[in-house]
Amino acid sequence: MSVYIAPQQDTIFVLDQLVELDKLAAQYALDDVSLELAEVIVQEAGKLATDVLSPLNTAGDKHGTALVDKQVQQSPGYKEAYQQYVDNGWATLTGPTEFGGQGLPNVLGTAINELWHSANMAFALCPMLSQGAVEALTAHGSPELQELYLHKLISGEWTGTMNLTEPNAGSDLAAIACKAKPEGDHYRIRGQKIYITWGDHQMTSNIVHLVLARLPDAPAGVKGISLFVVPKYLLSDEGEPTELNDARCISLEHKLGIHASPTCTMSFGDNDGAIGYLIGEPNKGLSYMFTMMNHARQSVGLQGLSISERAYQQARQFAKDRTQGTTKDGQKIAIIDYPDVRRMLMAMKSGCEAMRALSLCAAADIDKHHHGDLDAKARVEFYTPIVKGWMTELSQELTSLNIQIHGGMGFVEETGAAQHFRDARILTIYEGTTGIQALDLVGRKTLNDDANALKQLLNEVSNTVSQLSTSTDTTLNQITPRLNRALQKATAVKDWLLAQGKADRQMAANVSVDYLMMMGYLCGGWLMAKSALRAVELSGQNNLNNEANTYSEDFLTAKQGTSHFYAEYYLPRVHQHADTVLSGLSSTFSLDTDQL
Amino acid sequence: MSVYIAPQQDTIFVLDQLVELDKLAAQYALDDVSLELAEVIVQEAGKLATDVLSPLNTAGDKHGTALVDKQVQQSPGYKEAYQQYVDNGWATLTGPTEFGGQGLPNVLGTAINELWHSANMAFALCPMLSQGAVEALTAHGSPELQELYLHKLISGEWTGTMNLTEPNAGSDLAAIACKAKPEGDHYRIRGQKIYITWGDHQMTSNIVHLVLARLPDAPAGVKGISLFVVPKYLLSDEGEPTELNDARCISLEHKLGIHASPTCTMSFGDNDGAIGYLIGEPNKGLSYMFTMMNHARQSVGLQGLSISERAYQQARQFAKDRTQGTTKDGQKIAIIDYPDVRRMLMAMKSGCEAMRALSLCAAADIDKHHHGDLDAKARVEFYTPIVKGWMTELSQELTSLNIQIHGGMGFVEETGAAQHFRDARILTIYEGTTGIQALDLVGRKTLNDDANALKQLLNEVSNTVSQLSTSTDTTLNQITPRLNRALQKATAVKDWLLAQGKADRQMAANVSVDYLMMMGYLCGGWLMAKSALRAVELSGQNNLNNEANTYSEDFLTAKQGTSHFYAEYYLPRVHQHADTVLSGLSSTFSLDTDQL
Repeated sequence: MSVYIAPQQDTIFVLDQLVELDKLAAQYALDDVSLELAEVIVQEAGKLATDVLSPLNTAGDKHGTALVDKQVQQSPGYKEAYQQYVDNGWATLTGPTEFGGQGLPNVLGTAINELWHSANMAFALCPMLSQGAVEALTAHGSPELQELYLHKLISGEWTGTMNLTEPNAGSDLAAIACKAKPEGDHYRIRGQKIYITWGDHQMTSNIVHLVLARLPDAPAGVKGISLFVVPKYLLSDEGEPTELNDARCISLEHKLGIHASPTCTMSFGDNDGAIGYLIGEPNKGLSYMFTMMNHARQSVGLQGLSISERAYQQARQFAKDRTQGTTKDGQKIAIIDYPDVRRMLMAMKSGCEAMRALSLCAAADIDKHHHGDLDAKARVEFYTPIVKGWMTELSQELTSLNIQIHGGMGFVEETGAAQHFRDARILTIYEGTTGIQALDLVGRKTLNDDANALKQLLNEVSNTVSQLSTSTDTTLNQITPRLNRALQKATAVKDWLLAQGKADRQMAANVSVDYLMMMGYLCGGWLMAKSALRAVELSGQNNLNNEANTYSEDFLTAKQGTSHFYAEYYLPRVHQHADTVLSGLSSTFSLDTDQL
Repeated sequence: MSVYIAPQQDTIFVLDQLVELDKLAAQYALDDVSLELAEVIVQEAGKLATDVLSPLNTAGDKHGTALVDKQVQQSPGYKEAYQQYVDNGWATLTGPTEFGGQGLPNVLGTAINELWHSANMAFALCPMLSQGAVEALTAHGSPELQELYLHKLISGEWTGTMNLTEPNAGSDLAAIACKAKPEGDHYRIRGQKIYITWGDHQMTSNIVHLVLARLPDAPAGVKGISLFVVPKYLLSDEGEPTELNDARCISLEHKLGIHASPTCTMSFGDNDGAIGYLIGEPNKGLSYMFTMMNHARQSVGLQGLSISERAYQQARQFAKDRTQGTTKDGQKIAIIDYPDVRRMLMAMKSGCEAMRALSLCAAADIDKHHHGDLDAKARVEFYTPIVKGWMTELSQELTSLNIQIHGGMGFVEETGAAQHFRDARILTIYEGTTGIQALDLVGRKTLNDDANALKQLLNEVSNTVSQLSTSTDTTLNQITPRLNRALQKATAVKDWLLAQGKADRQMAANVSVDYLMMMGYLCGGWLMAKSALRAVELSGQNNLNNEANTYSEDFLTAKQGTSHFYAEYYLPRVHQHADTVLSGLSSTFSLDTDQL
């Protein structure tokens, strides 16, 4: 079992230098928010992550969950860990203050959520789903529903779930068949939902299911879906759980990974129909889902970073401990000193740093948008599929490198490296597959937008290139031309999309994932270059003022090193994916179905 | 559980058009060998693969193996399947005729082995290891040892194992500590070996362990390792198994994949010492291993193809069956018609075809080398790390795409997609990690060779480009410039290696895996382009002669399509990896160990 330690210094660096948290706090008069606060909460959350959640990760993988007497039993220790998470107030971090939340910005919540998912992704899925339910109820619930449910969801006393998928409705939500029949002030819900994360457990006194279903007179397709609250236990007039609702888990999936997270098939209405309450207006369910979607998708992207960081820390420790071969004078050689092992570790570290930079910048844009910044809204829309798609795809590679560094031991389950690899595999699938993200990016977010958000982003990269160009620093001088070439290539892709892609939407779809991946590597390279620029500046200040700096020289030179590595190792992928985009993958449909 | 069908037409096409099997048979007077024979044996092997081995694959994954009363119990049905494999004569295919083998060339053995590994990789590992033992004994065993062991190993009556790795000797065989003490005509072996594939089972009446160990007076390091035969059961004077030797499996690994293949920790000499017999001369064990290495490594590369082909067939079937969304006139849409799903299937199909082309061409070069062709020897040496490294790395991606196409169902073990992904994960590790292959390729096979083998290969690619350039076919005209640009880039890498890489071996090591991957994608692109060229020619003949062709028009146009797709989708990766090579990854060691 590997130890997990929160990467505090890097988190703070990104919040400070890229997000500019103090400026953000000042701009929106968030009086309690500061870099100092961020340091304190990262430190405190790091303790719970390291001491409580991380040690349960391996055991939860082995033990899994079980359906016993119609109730899902979570892994041993999870209930107590959850209670500690709640008692320490972590559930309330970003919830609205009027319902007991601390009202801290999303960017801080994101910085902390990274730690939970690194420590124990299967566990952290439970609060992640609750946050989704809070968001939906806060945005669209009636005051009555909010009063009944939000306090306890935000405190963590109850947890929440999202019930979307059905056996015949996966990526295609238009096919949802679950029914809701009006009955007085409530509805009777009937139907089956699959892949419901933490759909049942014994950690809390109630579970609040959010369920997509159709009213009797609803139009077909996505315009006829409504959203309902369906509590596991019905509430008394005082809002306390009483009898069981007609909603239960009827089976658990046997999955490749995240074994400690129960994935339930939920049956609603096996008897009288599950009692549910409409959220907002009828037939608006899908649009309500969309309001939550940016946050939910960014959260899954964040999991890609988290699991990669966890895998990196394990690989690093193994590479320091494991020896193979001897020097001429008989010293054993730690494998961390072999070039290819070092390459893999640098790929992991620089990849994680790039993902952290992107996820926190994108998370801060959600805050800015909440405060009315329309430019930020456009950026959120554009970033979200990249954060979700690119970061989860990259996490496949980085968790695999952890196994590779372990050699034969990586393939043996006992080591634990395989678990992170297995756990990561869901990330490119749930909350919209990479293909769905890519269609969103190329269609809604680029072509329908006349590439305005893309142009804006390319301008920002261009500004960074300009700033880099004035530097005389030798490392920055290695990075600058590489970033500039990547920018030129991405600009060519933009032009191609506006010409060819717009004229032929199927061709745009052929290359959509390559376009998404190109953007991911470009964003990562841009933010890493920006980081290197700041690190050089800060390092200079350190020398000039000869006084203590927030960041150690070791940290600042390391940041320049990982940025340099990113430019050498990952920026060539911008060109690779761009070249595929520019080909239009015109051969995609060159074979008939029968020829495949 | 998915059905597996041997990709017969493509195998025959490669044997015919790229390997030129009939020419090879004529040149070396292999009277029995012909394309017709190849068709017959692929067809017959395909039946066993489809009807017997493939159906056991899922069950073996679930059931695994167990150590019961000091004996390893294989999965149910495996003993009977193995017996059928032996009864049908498959074990004898490539064995030398003087010991009961059929003496067929390695390239045919490789074509057939692809099917076994596709059908059931865990099962097929057992005969694969036996083939290694046959090869070692044939090349280096005394006539007495050969007489005693080869007949029954070749018939399949017994199986063989390779015992190299120890807890402290993984990639570093110099650290081997197992001891062998002389005693009359034999030796007493003592020590522990780990990761021994099929180290014990109840499928045959004996198991022949080949064990690396040190004699008492052996020099330190790799020059002091000897190779021994250690039978599970000692033999009577008549060569029949009698009492148990002092060698047994003491534990089984709990692994990520290949669950039906028992991975044993073997203990030799817990009591009196295991009785073993020296193969060849003392202290030559490692060089004997090296003579088997090309074949062994190519066999693992082949597994990369096999598992990818299996995953492809499953993904294709799912994509045809699964519907999501409806057309405007209410027809359900099979997901195979969505561009991104089609892209993934084309990536899998064209990737498999490229791997099949490379693995069979490299396998044929082993035959040519056996018949004294020294140019072929150089090619075998050069191809082997590419076949092993690139094909196994690509199989990680292609088996993962199968899960991706399945969406949420891919993450559920019941579907079986996850098994192929888990099984594949060992391939980049055993028989030398990708890093070890890459060091071999860049060092021994390129820099020490003054890049002669590389230059020869680039010349061959150049010849294909020249041939392509004369064509007026529109698809070929799409492929030609892409292949030519990849060739130019690879040529730049060759020049860089001879200048920079030769001057700075550590820098060459930094970029070794990128160099290997670049070569893999280039070789694949070259052979796919060559295939397209032949397909166009054959297609033309079809039309002109208006008579039945070996290949259907459907097959020939599909080959052009997959070759075109390869050029658009995979050839850009040549540039990506080349750009990283050309950077020298100078930042690899920019961080101290403590900064990582």
